[in-house]
Amino acid sequence: MSQDSAGLPPTTTPNCNLMQDDGVWMMTASFIIFTMTAGFGLLESGRVSSKDEVNVMVKNVFDVIFGGLAYWMFGYGFTFGSSKHRFGQYIGYSHFFFDPEREDEESLDSKGISYSLFIFQMSFATTCSTIVSSGMSERIHLRSHCFISFFITLVHSIAGHWIWDQEGIFRKMGVIDSAGCSAVHLVGGISGLVATLYLRPRQKRFTKDGVRTVSDPTKAILGFLMIWWGWLAFNTSSNYAVIHGQWTEGARSAVATIMASVGGGLMTIFLSRIMTKKIQMDMLVDGLMASLVSSAGGCLYFTPWQATLVGAVGSTLALATYPLTEYLKIDDPVGVVPVHVVGSIWGMIAPAIFLIRREMNFGPDECTFQTSEEVNGLLYGGGTGLLFLQLLVVIIIVVYSAVCSFCILFAVKHSPIGLRISKYDEELGADLVEHGLAGLNLMQYTVEKKLDAQKLTAVLMVVVKWRSKARIGALRRKQIFDSSGGPTPAESHEMSTIHQRRH
Amino acid sequence: MSQDSAGLPPTTTPNCNLMQDDGVWMMTASFIIFTMTAGFGLLESGRVSSKDEVNVMVKNVFDVIFGGLAYWMFGYGFTFGSSKHRFGQYIGYSHFFFDPEREDEESLDSKGISYSLFIFQMSFATTCSTIVSSGMSERIHLRSHCFISFFITLVHSIAGHWIWDQEGIFRKMGVIDSAGCSAVHLVGGISGLVATLYLRPRQKRFTKDGVRTVSDPTKAILGFLMIWWGWLAFNTSSNYAVIHGQWTEGARSAVATIMASVGGGLMTIFLSRIMTKKIQMDMLVDGLMASLVSSAGGCLYFTPWQATLVGAVGSTLALATYPLTEYLKIDDPVGVVPVHVVGSIWGMIAPAIFLIRREMNFGPDECTFQTSEEVNGLLYGGGTGLLFLQLLVVIIIVVYSAVCSFCILFAVKHSPIGLRISKYDEELGADLVEHGLAGLNLMQYTVEKKLDAQKLTAVLMVVVKWRSKARIGALRRKQIFDSSGGPTPAESHEMSTIHQRRH
Amino acid sequence: MSQDSAGLPPTTTPNCNLMQDDGVWMMTASFIIFTMTAGFGLLESGRVSSKDEVNVMVKNVFDVIFGGLAYWMFGYGFTFGSSKHRFGQYIGYSHFFFDPEREDEESLDSKGISYSLFIFQMSFATTCSTIVSSGMSERIHLRSHCFISFFITLVHSIAGHWIWDQEGIFRKMGVIDSAGCSAVHLVGGISGLVATLYLRPRQKRFTKDGVRTVSDPTKAILGFLMIWWGWLAFNTSSNYAVIHGQWTEGARSAVATIMASVGGGLMTIFLSRIMTKKIQMDMLVDGLMASLVSSAGGCLYFTPWQATLVGAVGSTLALATYPLTEYLKIDDPVGVVPVHVVGSIWGMIAPAIFLIRREMNFGPDECTFQTSEEVNGLLYGGGTGLLFLQLLVVIIIVVYSAVCSFCILFAVKHSPIGLRISKYDEELGADLVEHGLAGLNLMQYTVEKKLDAQKLTAVLMVVVKWRSKARIGALRRKQIFDSSGGPTPAESHEMSTIHQRRH
Repeated sequence: MSQDSAGLPPTTTPNCNLMQDDGVWMMTASFIIFTMTAGFGLLESGRVSSKDEVNVMVKNVFDVIFGGLAYWMFGYGFTFGSSKHRFGQYIGYSHFFFDPEREDEESLDSKGISYSLFIFQMSFATTCSTIVSSGMSERIHLRSHCFISFFITLVHSIAGHWIWDQEGIFRKMGVIDSAGCSAVHLVGGISGLVATLYLRPRQKRFTKDGVRTVSDPTKAILGFLMIWWGWLAFNTSSNYAVIHGQWTEGARSAVATIMASVGGGLMTIFLSRIMTKKIQMDMLVDGLMASLVSSAGGCLYFTPWQATLVGAVGSTLALATYPLTEYLKIDDPVGVVPVHVVGSIWGMIAPAIFLIRREMNFGPDECTFQTSEEVNGLLYGGGTGLLFLQLLVVIIIVVYSAVCSFCILFAVKHSPIGLRISKYDEELGADLVEHGLAGLNLMQYTVEKKLDAQKLTAVLMVVVKWRSKARIGALRRKQIFDSSGGPTPAESHEMSTIHQRRH
Repeated sequence: MSQDSAGLPPTTTPNCNLMQDDGVWMMTASFIIFTMTAGFGLLESGRVSSKDEVNVMVKNVFDVIFGGLAYWMFGYGFTFGSSKHRFGQYIGYSHFFFDPEREDEESLDSKGISYSLFIFQMSFATTCSTIVSSGMSERIHLRSHCFISFFITLVHSIAGHWIWDQEGIFRKMGVIDSAGCSAVHLVGGISGLVATLYLRPRQKRFTKDGVRTVSDPTKAILGFLMIWWGWLAFNTSSNYAVIHGQWTEGARSAVATIMASVGGGLMTIFLSRIMTKKIQMDMLVDGLMASLVSSAGGCLYFTPWQATLVGAVGSTLALATYPLTEYLKIDDPVGVVPVHVVGSIWGMIAPAIFLIRREMNFGPDECTFQTSEEVNGLLYGGGTGLLFLQLLVVIIIVVYSAVCSFCILFAVKHSPIGLRISKYDEELGADLVEHGLAGLNLMQYTVEKKLDAQKLTAVLMVVVKWRSKARIGALRRKQIFDSSGGPTPAESHEMSTIHQRRH
Repeated sequence: MSQDSAGLPPTTTPNCNLMQDDGVWMMTASFIIFTMTAGFGLLESGRVSSKDEVNVMVKNVFDVIFGGLAYWMFGYGFTFGSSKHRFGQYIGYSHFFFDPEREDEESLDSKGISYSLFIFQMSFATTCSTIVSSGMSERIHLRSHCFISFFITLVHSIAGHWIWDQEGIFRKMGVIDSAGCSAVHLVGGISGLVATLYLRPRQKRFTKDGVRTVSDPTKAILGFLMIWWGWLAFNTSSNYAVIHGQWTEGARSAVATIMASVGGGLMTIFLSRIMTKKIQMDMLVDGLMASLVSSAGGCLYFTPWQATLVGAVGSTLALATYPLTEYLKIDDPVGVVPVHVVGSIWGMIAPAIFLIRREMNFGPDECTFQTSEEVNGLLYGGGTGLLFLQLLVVIIIVVYSAVCSFCILFAVKHSPIGLRISKYDEELGADLVEHGLAGLNLMQYTVEKKLDAQKLTAVLMVVVKWRSKARIGALRRKQIFDSSGGPTPAESHEMSTIHQRRH
């Protein structure tokens, strides 16, 4: 694989040495990014109803398997393959079934960079299909999921070429997308939106007395925390390089990432308090996620205060779409629309406002890999050129991924594979149907929408439950110490009644 | 920001190059340290009663948001801001609302180091407020928590100046504190102790028949394991640098950290076995945590056997305070006192005993950043000078953080915000009241204090439960297959219809 | 400690400088590898019955404590200690109670490398005892576990000398074992197998109506995901070095690791679908784990397609042993046999087939640390020499670890410590007996073997349960709002009182 087609900054061409440091940095980052798979799994698993929590984890494992397969077979080739053909601006075409060893002319170093780039970008690609999967939770066949996550990865890879490859059309036009805001989050978000619309809502989701139960909020928050730490690596390492002072951009990016979530967090807490009189778990997680997505566009350039502001705006816009999705009856179990659609669109617009280009003396001249032109954002007299470019990219990618994902879904639905599970299986839950797990799992929560009669009910139910549980406990102890020893008839009778009431 | 005021080892001034390696090291470490937030969250969430587990996770998210905000606004400035003013030894004063881009004279490299230092130190600062939060679990308003975690971060930042900044008073006096033993753990521990005293115990915590229920011990141990791995980075990277052979100190530190927990673990297991006839989950976790805290003071210098010993003593002292806190009726849900107070005091004393200074030829002379004087510990004929210094630092920081945290708590309590939740809300649990989660969560455990009648009860209860559950299961199956009616005729009808649908 | 006896590639002798980069790389990798402890803990905890889940987590903590102790006392010395004695090929003998500071002649750098190597290898050693522990779950005394995990670590350390030390017999013979496939997984797997045979199955495991309950599949999958990301570091950093272009081997290794799990995942999903008509959680996890183990042997050399194939074969072989272990009534709660025994044997054979040596111009000549001879695998005309060597190593290590672990188990059993817990304690569960946790934990699942009547039962039970639960909920609400008495008069009284308190 020649360096050019690798879409790598020339910093890594032999004449700019120290490739080792860049390779090691990319590898380390990719390891940390892979922890996000666990994070996404938990985030989704904790937010769906408990009859599907295992299934959701399995789907995230599948995303790595089938996404990884797709990326190895075609994805890497589409993104970083050779552009020396007629449509070179639009798609890479070579290096399918990725294997640097085939190209004998390659130096040891450039092979190493290819391997590092592959594992690094693969961790991005699998993230994309994970986003889509979260839009289809609880109502799609596992077998259909495999195909979708395979093909969505390819959809992402082609968009990746436009953004990341040196010959990619948008990169040549000077688009600003530091860490896959458009190629990962927008593609994933739109595809997820199309999927959830195409699949139609879960049963009873929008019925009058439809309570939403989530399996485990703690798990969801743990998942978010994992994604949070992974995101630091995700954004920071997105310029592929540390040498020639490029690590300073990484460091700026890390600070921008954390400050964006600080700003976003503040707005989220404020809004959730206003809208629901409390800190609702979904809002908190979605708001924070949205702020992180917003930072993905310009994280390499934002100063701390800019990042804080961008994150705050991102969260606000995201939470503002809640009523909309409810009104439009879009069943979005894990907040794909607010987080990844709204968040990434704002994330692409933000740089056009805040970007201020500093002269970057990154090593030898032939090693500077930024678009040469000194474009500034609106705030710094850069004019609207960049804004239009960013919006153009957003629109094209929205249309592109909407069309592609629709075709994929349509094809899968009308194939023997099928798409949506039967009403009956949906009621039983995928854990039982797909994985044969007959769960006694009673760990589940009911999320209430706002302070209303239901709240009171819940309150009373809980008090009653706790009281009576306590009483039974006391009773048991008494009986036991009256040395009735084993289970007395009376007791076991009580037990069974209790159990029936619980189950 | 000039290097001096950055409190950075001069190793990072331009004339000692290779700043890239230090910057990348600090960034990578900070990413791993941020995983500790998830760890602390789980550790606390698993140890409080299940009606508060979600709330505790949320509080840990808040600690990053509000702690991060405080650190960005003032914290970094207080710690590493300019000391070129009258009270320069006591507090930094500049670089508020951290933004290296403002200082135009800065070189790209020094900007990078500032960013890396910020993200790295921020991960320390948020840890500090997390410690405090764990002392207030289950009985404080979420809104009050926000203010406290904001201000505690500033309290920590000022102490950080004394220890970490080159102009800081204690650093100039030659205090030994490798990884924030005093500035993070002692400040956090004392503030947490003051908070738990000021808030008074949870209801029924010290009543005669008060059983303690924890939501999920597995979760608590998982949390500890996350903290454990994060601690390796926490201690190892605490000299900010790898270049000029300073990475060897890091490596020594990593080994010291793990060996401290080995030594501490052995003592913990031994003591828990003696005191409770079994390995009690809280003791195990607290003992191990205490050994890690003990290692934070001198980890850069301890040899493996020293670290093992230090850890063992730390755990012993920590567990020895259990009866005391019980006797004094200090309600300490997550072991703040034994772990962070006792652990960190011992952690500050230990170096004064075991320290042996080796001639350190770290690169060019102008790059050695250790206090020049060759102080040894007591064991190596260093005299009591260092011991007195370390004790002085401990006493001052104890008084300082006790006073500050009391003032904060007092102010919040007498503000409209208020401090402690109502008796009634406490009974309902914060998950319901603050987050509107009406949980059916039955996953909870009762931790028994020592081998007594209650043990027997528990045993019998479990047997009874399992037996009767099994019986009910069998019964149901029978009913279903005789299809002679389930719990209600309606249901049995359903079942038979399902029967038909299935076949 | 002299470099030679450190078993380190001479790349790290002073004349090949840049030791810093290698040291930092080893440290960072070891931190990530330590996250696997949490992963193994969850993987096991989620797959045993819920009455033992805490105990399993504790055992994983113990593995680090006692394994670490053993490694510090003797393990490191046995593996990398001096070979300058009669049996130098078979065992290292020096550096017990590891402490580089003792050897005064050492340079600062070589001390650093020793520390890094120690923490790195310790993370491998503790993994080995974890594997064994998973074979003994649910039926061994905690106290016995301590001794076993201590001694198994030493068994591993001696085998490590053969494979990793420059003077080790197998390394000198040119064995290919990139990342402890034989010294970690085979030793651990065989010892685990011997342990599970020696302990005999759990009660009711093989009785006719014996249903297997697992505590929490989600937890198990989360654990696997943690192991997955840790494995990337585990394999990638296994050549100890990044300098002189050796990082390219690391990058190849990372890609090989992920591709192996892709290949393995595909076969696993296919087979599980065929064998059980669904994706069974244990099969999925074991199949993927087996593919990772398979990659450990030759990960430094495999090209992506080779790795994919190796992983696929590994998973297939692993799942093929399921019926066998069932037939032989081997009670293997967490799949030690398919994963670590079968997986690692295939993992050792694979390189003999696929290995293709490339001329490696790693820096100065004195720095190449690969076995000089240009051995190729069968596919590349390398002849059967390497295959026989690999098989020889497998056989010797199988016999060696079987004998050693048997002796350890035998000794422990016939000591006052004892081995297996009483029938009664086993029924109560270790969480209660060893940790005094009287759990109300109802979170558990029944894993069914294949599509049969029991499935139907489960289905019906679940439907019934959900329906009736919903009805009760509705009923309560109604009652509460009519405030016409709750489930019992007493309760309704409570509720009304609360009602009054509320208003």
